[in-house]
Amino acid sequence: MSEQEQNPVKGKLYGVGLGPGDPSLMTLRAVEVIAEADVVAYHSARHGRSIARSIAAKHLRSDHVEEPLVYPVTTETTDHPGGYQGAMEEFYEASAARLAAHLDAGRTVAVLAEGDPLFYGSYMHMHKRLADRYEAEVVPGVTSVSAAAARLGTPLVEGEEVLTILPGTLPEEELTARLAATDSAVVMKLGRTFPAVRGAMEASGRLAEARYVERATMEGERTGLLADTDPDSVPYFAVAVVPSRVGNPGSVPSGPGEVVVVGTGPAGPLWLTPETRRALADAEVLVGYTTYLDRVPVKPGQVRHGSDNKVESERAEFALDLARRGKRVAGVSGG
Amino acid sequence: MSEQEQNPVKGKLYGVGLGPGDPSLMTLRAVEVIAEADVVAYHSARHGRSIARSIAAKHLRSDHVEEPLVYPVTTETTDHPGGYQGAMEEFYEASAARLAAHLDAGRTVAVLAEGDPLFYGSYMHMHKRLADRYEAEVVPGVTSVSAAAARLGTPLVEGEEVLTILPGTLPEEELTARLAATDSAVVMKLGRTFPAVRGAMEASGRLAEARYVERATMEGERTGLLADTDPDSVPYFAVAVVPSRVGNPGSVPSGPGEVVVVGTGPAGPLWLTPETRRALADAEVLVGYTTYLDRVPVKPGQVRHGSDNKVESERAEFALDLARRGKRVAGVSGG
Repeated sequence: MSEQEQNPVKGKLYGVGLGPGDPSLMTLRAVEVIAEADVVAYHSARHGRSIARSIAAKHLRSDHVEEPLVYPVTTETTDHPGGYQGAMEEFYEASAARLAAHLDAGRTVAVLAEGDPLFYGSYMHMHKRLADRYEAEVVPGVTSVSAAAARLGTPLVEGEEVLTILPGTLPEEELTARLAATDSAVVMKLGRTFPAVRGAMEASGRLAEARYVERATMEGERTGLLADTDPDSVPYFAVAVVPSRVGNPGSVPSGPGEVVVVGTGPAGPLWLTPETRRALADAEVLVGYTTYLDRVPVKPGQVRHGSDNKVESERAEFALDLARRGKRVAGVSGG
Repeated sequence: MSEQEQNPVKGKLYGVGLGPGDPSLMTLRAVEVIAEADVVAYHSARHGRSIARSIAAKHLRSDHVEEPLVYPVTTETTDHPGGYQGAMEEFYEASAARLAAHLDAGRTVAVLAEGDPLFYGSYMHMHKRLADRYEAEVVPGVTSVSAAAARLGTPLVEGEEVLTILPGTLPEEELTARLAATDSAVVMKLGRTFPAVRGAMEASGRLAEARYVERATMEGERTGLLADTDPDSVPYFAVAVVPSRVGNPGSVPSGPGEVVVVGTGPAGPLWLTPETRRALADAEVLVGYTTYLDRVPVKPGQVRHGSDNKVESERAEFALDLARRGKRVAGVSGG
């Protein structure tokens, strides 16, 4: 045995983001890493094909060693003594051991990952089990979030806006609270969660803005209003998008002017309720004591009238006058 | 004049995501669109180079018509009568008019965009002004968020976790509230906002988990703990990352067991305070009346003991016993 065979150099692990589905949305780096890999691994469903493999298909060669990592369970029940969690844990351990054997033999392993490997992806389970023992590199990819916004042709998030990414599997009340409290949002993992997501959009007042995107950039792509989507037709590979509010006047209520008095609570913005955040986001004009106004995030297009804390009646009169002229005014107060 | 010259076919507008900085993180589609474009437009600072142009440089040809869109202001003051907002508005209008002239003449225009075009990008201003009159297509790109997680080699968001993307320009109290209420987070646009972001990380109890990434995938890249970062050294092109908590035991306090009693408030999850969310996220075991427990999002690795509403004293005893054995227990109650 040569010295090299006794102490072989270990192989390198790559988590390769493939993007949302259209093979042309792979990065140059993803193509390069696959070309240089000895082993190409990918997750696949038990009775189905691997979406990851199909995205990268054009770049696979006959001399690539392929390692399909076949999920033992998807949504069906399992007779594993540890239940779903136990079956998955065992599967990840076994998969990592298979990849480790290649790495120990000095082979470069590319694990294909739909979208971005570290964003709700299966690659993470391999990374956690192997990256402490082997050299590992993650090639980031285009997420389904970016793909959905691109196919809708609508800005996702701008300027001072907050974007919240939510799994549709959260309880409906939690989804409602999160949707009410954010500017933009994307809800992942629809399918069976769709009725709860739709309910949360409605309860949080976001349904009119919400869009629906299925299989963005892939065959069978579908986009539309979430409100018009038939719940029975929604697969897991669909997302709900609440786009940017900036320059999107359809997203705020129109109608006669109004004054909403908004209490910022004993802890200021820390304890703002979703209803308060909503009222602040919907207002065209903010009126209040400068100290409190400064605690409210600046929104493009929103006018702020700050004054000191000695002119309360003038401020109220001013706010009412603006409302009479058709403006939606929020009076910001402490307490 | 031929008929075609009298009624020329209008050109097509592309917003082309270039990814986070490393030219190899451009997508195949981005390269293809640039190759087919007649005009390549990109934003650039008044006294500096265009980062977008430098990412795509290898794909630009001498027969490309280049349209640099030079910002009239960056952070300095302006003597425009409309101030910063007025100067920018005028700039976007003038830029759109220049691109429209090319499109009217039948030229294909590719607007280069760092990262993803619809994610806090400048391309959006062109899209809003032109996409209603011309055919437009957005090529999504890898965001700096995905790049930062890749360079840290740490999962960004998993399973049932919520990811919040925040601009560092928000008020510090607002940042604190948002950071306390989310699982994972990325704070964009650091630079001068860094002290406030650091303060918010500390106040929300997230500082120990927070990572710092500067110029991910670009020359001069720097990564580390946010807590160790010198505030004076932070440029605008840096982000703060609070990674996934799943399988990241360093992210929750260790020490002796404890019982925290968590009130879900009159409106359930809708009105949870950041402190409540934090206590629920940090707990190893949740104990409570099943109806209330079902309203709390499931976290991997967290054990739930639900019971009916008639066994309150048994429940309390059970929770205290777990805490005595070193567990962090949250007792979930209504009201």
